[in-house]
Amino acid sequence: MAARRPTVRPGDPISAVDGPALLVDLAAFQRNIATMAAFARGHGLRLRAHGKTHKCGAIAQIQQAAGAVGLCCQKVSEAEVFVDAGIADVLVSNEVIELGKLQRLARLAGRARIGICVDSLLGLERLAEAAAEATAPIDVYIEIEVGAGRCGVPDTAAALALMERVGGSTKLRYAGIQAYQGQAQHLRQPAQRQAAIDAAVRRVTALREALAKRGAPIGIVTGAGTGTFYLEAASGVYDEIQPGSYIFMDRDYRDNAPAAEAPRFEHSLTLLTTVISAAGDHVVVDAGHKAHAIDSGMPAISGRPDLLYRNPSDEHGIISSGDGGALPVLGERLQLIPGHCDPTVNLHDWLIAHRDGLVADIWEVEARGALT
Amino acid sequence: MAARRPTVRPGDPISAVDGPALLVDLAAFQRNIATMAAFARGHGLRLRAHGKTHKCGAIAQIQQAAGAVGLCCQKVSEAEVFVDAGIADVLVSNEVIELGKLQRLARLAGRARIGICVDSLLGLERLAEAAAEATAPIDVYIEIEVGAGRCGVPDTAAALALMERVGGSTKLRYAGIQAYQGQAQHLRQPAQRQAAIDAAVRRVTALREALAKRGAPIGIVTGAGTGTFYLEAASGVYDEIQPGSYIFMDRDYRDNAPAAEAPRFEHSLTLLTTVISAAGDHVVVDAGHKAHAIDSGMPAISGRPDLLYRNPSDEHGIISSGDGGALPVLGERLQLIPGHCDPTVNLHDWLIAHRDGLVADIWEVEARGALT
Repeated sequence: MAARRPTVRPGDPISAVDGPALLVDLAAFQRNIATMAAFARGHGLRLRAHGKTHKCGAIAQIQQAAGAVGLCCQKVSEAEVFVDAGIADVLVSNEVIELGKLQRLARLAGRARIGICVDSLLGLERLAEAAAEATAPIDVYIEIEVGAGRCGVPDTAAALALMERVGGSTKLRYAGIQAYQGQAQHLRQPAQRQAAIDAAVRRVTALREALAKRGAPIGIVTGAGTGTFYLEAASGVYDEIQPGSYIFMDRDYRDNAPAAEAPRFEHSLTLLTTVISAAGDHVVVDAGHKAHAIDSGMPAISGRPDLLYRNPSDEHGIISSGDGGALPVLGERLQLIPGHCDPTVNLHDWLIAHRDGLVADIWEVEARGALT
Repeated sequence: MAARRPTVRPGDPISAVDGPALLVDLAAFQRNIATMAAFARGHGLRLRAHGKTHKCGAIAQIQQAAGAVGLCCQKVSEAEVFVDAGIADVLVSNEVIELGKLQRLARLAGRARIGICVDSLLGLERLAEAAAEATAPIDVYIEIEVGAGRCGVPDTAAALALMERVGGSTKLRYAGIQAYQGQAQHLRQPAQRQAAIDAAVRRVTALREALAKRGAPIGIVTGAGTGTFYLEAASGVYDEIQPGSYIFMDRDYRDNAPAAEAPRFEHSLTLLTTVISAAGDHVVVDAGHKAHAIDSGMPAISGRPDLLYRNPSDEHGIISSGDGGALPVLGERLQLIPGHCDPTVNLHDWLIAHRDGLVADIWEVEARGALT
């Protein structure tokens, strides 16, 4: 079936939007886009915006138009959406091990510049097999483990071994190093984030020196998210940054103590929800686990720091007062600031961009549910 | 755009399914369907299966064919899907406060028997306004609070006041009492669940006695979930049960200590995932927050009690050994037993039913993302 389409159109008042629905404050969103674009330009960095945050062709196009060199994403099925949307350079910043998926990736290579991360010989061999059918070469980034304890080769020797094998296929092009420290993004204090990125930079530097000793190019060093990109930028060893959440922000990023030197971003994404039941010391809203993700904690309530969202269930959340003050009334609408923007957006088929109280645009989340 | 369609067809081997994807063990699923149907029949209870678990017309049809009197669901947009699927009796077991949504519900009333829960005068007045246009009456269930601390009128007096108002509209038909104790479902010990349902039963009984004193009918008393339905059945005050999760089960339900008198259900739902990276003391699979819900804790790993799934991020999970034994290898596929089935299914467009290692059927989750 077709994705559930919102019943509003551009020009309609926001009051006509049925909740739960995701709203994007277009002015704040555009300022976020401009701030990150200016930062990258000012630091001579390539901005490869992360599409896993929005999964939306329209937003990818806005990012590309604002100067992003391209997008990155985590799944081949997301890459298919972004290539369909006309994005010129798409990197799957993740490992893919199945031949069938790699063959789908290879079929994109004639339509856009396509890249992928590799951290195993098996992955590289399957990629080479899939790429044999490609009409254009595929960029290969060797992912190195830089402290997040997730993917990536563990040391310089393993990275060098993989790099040497890339040259064995004429359809693969060694492109550089993926060095993303995902765990550093939500360390609360600037000094903690600094220490984590310093450690990542040391690993990149060791690899860079080993390559220089061999006279081999390092290519593009890419990585960095919304929590730390200013640190990777300052390190001098990264060529490209991959922030995603900066366009929307969320409660989890709000809880980071900001670094003095980092540009600021605004909350642009909210979840519209309605009070459907009111009883004594709490009210109940119609947004639960199926409308927003709580893996990074509870949402905040926009403009109502006196209220707490708690005890979510599948379709409900409880709102109570943090200070004993007045509760919202039955039928009242609230805007939640999601705890974690990426998996929240993945629950929705549409984003409703608004300005001055009116629906400005309706963006389809085409890659929602794109898991393969 | 159309929902992402699986690349497999019935008859294909399960090995051809791309992960992450939800699999349903058809034999176990059918045994679960039969067990609950037999329980309801044996106890003279109406089974109103909860569609919030599966959001899938094909499964609703299977439940109706097995003797369910109808389905319940939480959103008008889910009711629309189930009516489209030919379900004859659909109850929105939740409050809806917006006139526009209630008008959509009223438009369904000519096509199936339609009901909804109410716990406020405002909700009832708006329902009456919407129902004025309906071609058939709408069943009204008064929801009473029975200990979950969520929706429902707080006491007998408030319930009686609302019941009296239902008669004011010829398009509304008083149908009964919604008395669902959601918080009791995952109390771990049978005695805890018993105590919670005993308390709920006392509230229902008080209302029943107040109605008897007035000579007013109580109608159908409905409620109960997979964790406690055997208790509501034993109470003698419930006419109808609303279990949902019994068809799939999940890790959270598995963690309940079973009651001796309760029928058992099997895990039929698993999430297929693949090892995409392997490093030292852990491996990384390709299923994170966007593929399964962790609001009720981490998934188990089917057939591998020695392995632990931990530290999920948006598209990754870490698998480590609980006993120092062998880890899965790169490219190996695992089946996760989701922590919580309902919000996990809501992340997927399709369920792949399998039997004897082959794809048996492919069911669309038509109401995935149906939030309004």
